[in-house]
Amino acid sequence: MSTREITAELISIGDELLIGQTINTNAGWIGAELSSIGIRTKRVQTIADDAAAITSALDDTASDIILITGGLGPTKDDITKHTLCTYFDTRLVRHPDIEARIVAFFEQLGRDPLESNRAQADLPEACEVVPNERGTASGMWFAKGERVFVSMPGVPYEMKAMMRQEVLPRLRERFRPPTIIHRTLLTTGLGESHLAERIAAWETGLVADRIKLAYLPSPGIVKLRLSAYAEQDPVATRGRVDRQAEALYRLVPELIFGEGEDRLEQVVGLALKGKGQTLALAESCTGGYVSHLITSVPGSSAYYTGGVVSYANAVKMEELGIPSDMLELNGAVSRPVVEKMAAGVRQALHTDWSIALSGVAGPDGGTAEKPVGTVWMAVAGPGGVRSVKGFFPGTRDLVIKRSALAALNMLRLALLRGEEAWKQAPVPQEGDEL
Amino acid sequence: MSTREITAELISIGDELLIGQTINTNAGWIGAELSSIGIRTKRVQTIADDAAAITSALDDTASDIILITGGLGPTKDDITKHTLCTYFDTRLVRHPDIEARIVAFFEQLGRDPLESNRAQADLPEACEVVPNERGTASGMWFAKGERVFVSMPGVPYEMKAMMRQEVLPRLRERFRPPTIIHRTLLTTGLGESHLAERIAAWETGLVADRIKLAYLPSPGIVKLRLSAYAEQDPVATRGRVDRQAEALYRLVPELIFGEGEDRLEQVVGLALKGKGQTLALAESCTGGYVSHLITSVPGSSAYYTGGVVSYANAVKMEELGIPSDMLELNGAVSRPVVEKMAAGVRQALHTDWSIALSGVAGPDGGTAEKPVGTVWMAVAGPGGVRSVKGFFPGTRDLVIKRSALAALNMLRLALLRGEEAWKQAPVPQEGDEL
Repeated sequence: MSTREITAELISIGDELLIGQTINTNAGWIGAELSSIGIRTKRVQTIADDAAAITSALDDTASDIILITGGLGPTKDDITKHTLCTYFDTRLVRHPDIEARIVAFFEQLGRDPLESNRAQADLPEACEVVPNERGTASGMWFAKGERVFVSMPGVPYEMKAMMRQEVLPRLRERFRPPTIIHRTLLTTGLGESHLAERIAAWETGLVADRIKLAYLPSPGIVKLRLSAYAEQDPVATRGRVDRQAEALYRLVPELIFGEGEDRLEQVVGLALKGKGQTLALAESCTGGYVSHLITSVPGSSAYYTGGVVSYANAVKMEELGIPSDMLELNGAVSRPVVEKMAAGVRQALHTDWSIALSGVAGPDGGTAEKPVGTVWMAVAGPGGVRSVKGFFPGTRDLVIKRSALAALNMLRLALLRGEEAWKQAPVPQEGDEL
Repeated sequence: MSTREITAELISIGDELLIGQTINTNAGWIGAELSSIGIRTKRVQTIADDAAAITSALDDTASDIILITGGLGPTKDDITKHTLCTYFDTRLVRHPDIEARIVAFFEQLGRDPLESNRAQADLPEACEVVPNERGTASGMWFAKGERVFVSMPGVPYEMKAMMRQEVLPRLRERFRPPTIIHRTLLTTGLGESHLAERIAAWETGLVADRIKLAYLPSPGIVKLRLSAYAEQDPVATRGRVDRQAEALYRLVPELIFGEGEDRLEQVVGLALKGKGQTLALAESCTGGYVSHLITSVPGSSAYYTGGVVSYANAVKMEELGIPSDMLELNGAVSRPVVEKMAAGVRQALHTDWSIALSGVAGPDGGTAEKPVGTVWMAVAGPGGVRSVKGFFPGTRDLVIKRSALAALNMLRLALLRGEEAWKQAPVPQEGDEL
């Protein structure tokens, strides 16, 4: 195990990044991957497809590892490879095996490769070639003294596969950064400060186990990342991290909906599929967004029958059977109406479960009694219908996204922890910090 | 007017950017804004909240304009202001007027400001203060010889207002970059190469008018940006650009749905509102996404009554009146079914117009006859119902997003150019390049 910190710098090459035509998402992704294997990213330089700019950016680095993305395409404005050739004082040589792969790739598309496509098989003599299984631009690995420079394509789909399959394993092999054990638990329902209060005692206990905790907030979700250096015994470290993760599950089961890359709509879908049960939706303020989330999951037709977006009161009456006097008496944003919406759509679509939402998404339509951000949410199931009022302040977009997550979390609890468990779902109220 | 190019460099400060917790969207946005006033961004440096890193990044710049974002919060890891103070050899002085604004800001939230909040009114003596109308962190403008360094908050909502209202006008005033006249026309329905073929003759004519054209593609949309240097006579230049834009409108009216920041769902909403007409939706493969787009527009309840997401065939039959033998005979992804969906939802929800979509979003469910990406789309209106089959290859997410845009464009044409005009909507077919 290395005793000093291993550092990296990234160089993102591309005119389109500087004029804002493309957002540089590669740099953040690479930084996160490096961090997960214990390498610290010190700086990202984003520069133009320009030989002088590339050379100056390379000269300007001082880290152990320099990762370069972009500028490897077949067109004449892609100059990274030629610039690296000059920088490392080497020459291009053609690799027949790579050329054959490029030709086969084009034949598969029913097209003939141009000479500029074949020329992607010309690579610097001084580099180790890094295979690109998803495209025609090979990566290049240059060693210079103790330092390493790696050039990768800028297309995220190609770069990500190359990083995970080739570059990260080689970097671990070469630099032996300290092994870090991670687990990331995903929570919803409480803002960062309230969550921190709730789990304060547990968090204090992490110190003795030499586990670090990071709060990573985004709208409606706070990720909790546990990490620990593996030291001499990775299995024991993994055990410590797992024990603390299990302790957190026992402490706040209502808040944790998954881990890593899980999405709440997937978790709900898996639970429905596991039980062989079905879902319908009745949406007012969220306008189809919950339905969009549910159906963004491949295979959702196995458990999702459909939904009604009842934007107008007439639709609430005719499609969901809401009596007009109920609407007049209580208003559309009310407990009786949202419960009747949930019961109505469950009955009409013959499902086991349903979710309904009715609220004020804004920016207009708020009142003193029902300000923008007020959302009634109901879940109906085999045992009846329950509802709760939440308050999700913010822009129209945030009201929609946060209330959708809160309603899905209610259903998750009802499915996984028994029908009464939805009551445990924490729902933000007026005056709460988010 | 300046005769040489004005250049800028950006410095984005924040640990969260380097570990990928937050994606650096500020840099691209600023680059686009600078480009629109004729200033070229040469480089972005993304660095940690670290005094040595900030100083080294500042030393390392050579452009006319250095724009710095981030690290201006009230907590102790926000060190940009102190580092700039040392860098420009000046000291902090408290601004009582800014302190009063901060106190008022907290009072409005019903809270007492901490001393760390009040300390945001301490600003370097040597800078010009740049007001922040959306938050408590002021901007700082330092002049150093011919160069300018501006520090702004990293919160996008605050930074963007400060850029547009304060920084961009001051930069124009100080550097007098050549005035550039822009118009950006938004198209949908044709991929970049097909679009280029279609408008080739028009594009050739731009040269004589000294107008540059850029194609900016994103899924389902290609933006066409016209730009020209204003030279001696900005009014005449504006006239040349406008005339070419009008010529493009005449050439491909079916493709252009708006300009600048317009969104297709807004354009459709405005057209419905203008006519006092209403819309309903019947979605199968898009699963509520079109409804989500429509309702993401504030005020959409004025023209959108609601919709049915008919994922299961039973819902198509019961809610939309599709006969079961029609489903058996043709399958759900077929002309008769999608037309009946459109007619059924229009009738059930009593609207002037409706859109229906039924297709194979994938990744599973494709057949040789109806591969993944096949989507039938129908528009029903006062004059009857029309439908067309499109082919939108790609991931599930792309099939949903591209077919949603194509269907909205059909409705746009029917609304704005007469009910038969939807036929002009170009809809991608199998074998098309996208």
